Amino acid sequence: MDQRITMVTLGVRDLARSRRFYELLGWTAREASGGDIVFFQLQGSVMGLYPRPALAEDAALHDDAPNAQFGGIALAYNARDKAEVDRVLVEAKGAGAKILKPAQDVFWGGYSGYFADLDGHPWEVAFNPHWPLEADGSLKMKRG
Amino acid sequence: MDQRITMVTLGVRDLARSRRFYELLGWTAREASGGDIVFFQLQGSVMGLYPRPALAEDAALHDDAPNAQFGGIALAYNARDKAEVDRVLVEAKGAGAKILKPAQDVFWGGYSGYFADLDGHPWEVAFNPHWPLEADGSLKMKRG
Repeated sequence: MDQRITMVTLGVRDLARSRRFYELLGWTAREASGGDIVFFQLQGSVMGLYPRPALAEDAALHDDAPNAQFGGIALAYNARDKAEVDRVLVEAKGAGAKILKPAQDVFWGGYSGYFADLDGHPWEVAFNPHWPLEADGSLKMKRG
Repeated sequence: MDQRITMVTLGVRDLARSRRFYELLGWTAREASGGDIVFFQLQGSVMGLYPRPALAEDAALHDDAPNAQFGGIALAYNARDKAEVDRVLVEAKGAGAKILKPAQDVFWGGYSGYFADLDGHPWEVAFNPHWPLEADGSLKMKRG
């Protein structure tokens, strides 16, 4: 597993309102085609806003008392191909992580799984064919 | 507020054990001089591991039921000087954020405050004289 975080996704209650908050701070957002996720290009990585129940569900985590397991933020590690996704999940499990969701083909055209680290912080491990990484592991979203 | 996240800090129960987890994944850590925080240099930013109670306290958030407010992760925005810290906190408040901790001189030699965004995600806004930013806002920790 290379030393990078590709995306930090914040679970939000009201996507439009939270988007507007960051825009008021001077940030420029980009929507995915479906309009149900908002991206902000950072220096080398991306911050996402995504409805919190959907984010918890994506990570296969409960978000309701008394069994809440989700802190509201998911980290993502983008891999260069599907084989790297599989490899990282095996490594993570070997290091003591809990596999929350085995790697699988996903609706947005990629391949993704989740592990939780020793403190329960969820990491998505994903290959996104639309998002090739730079040589240094940075993610620069294309315009358009 | 420029469009960047400088640091993602994960609250952990056992610093040595969590550090070892990421080292088993192939990552290389660096300790702060005090040994109570662990840093991993990422592509343009830094991931930190810090004891969860101390991280919650730093952000002035409760982490105990039934009034828990802390999800276990704090984001940080490093500013280029103290004036930028003040400016960003004023902007954030104007956009609807809650100021968790007003900017103040802190024990590690910097100047820092916290706001919570509309969904309660905590952001530290900090000037760290030991960590000058690159021109593009990236943070590259110095060796040594």
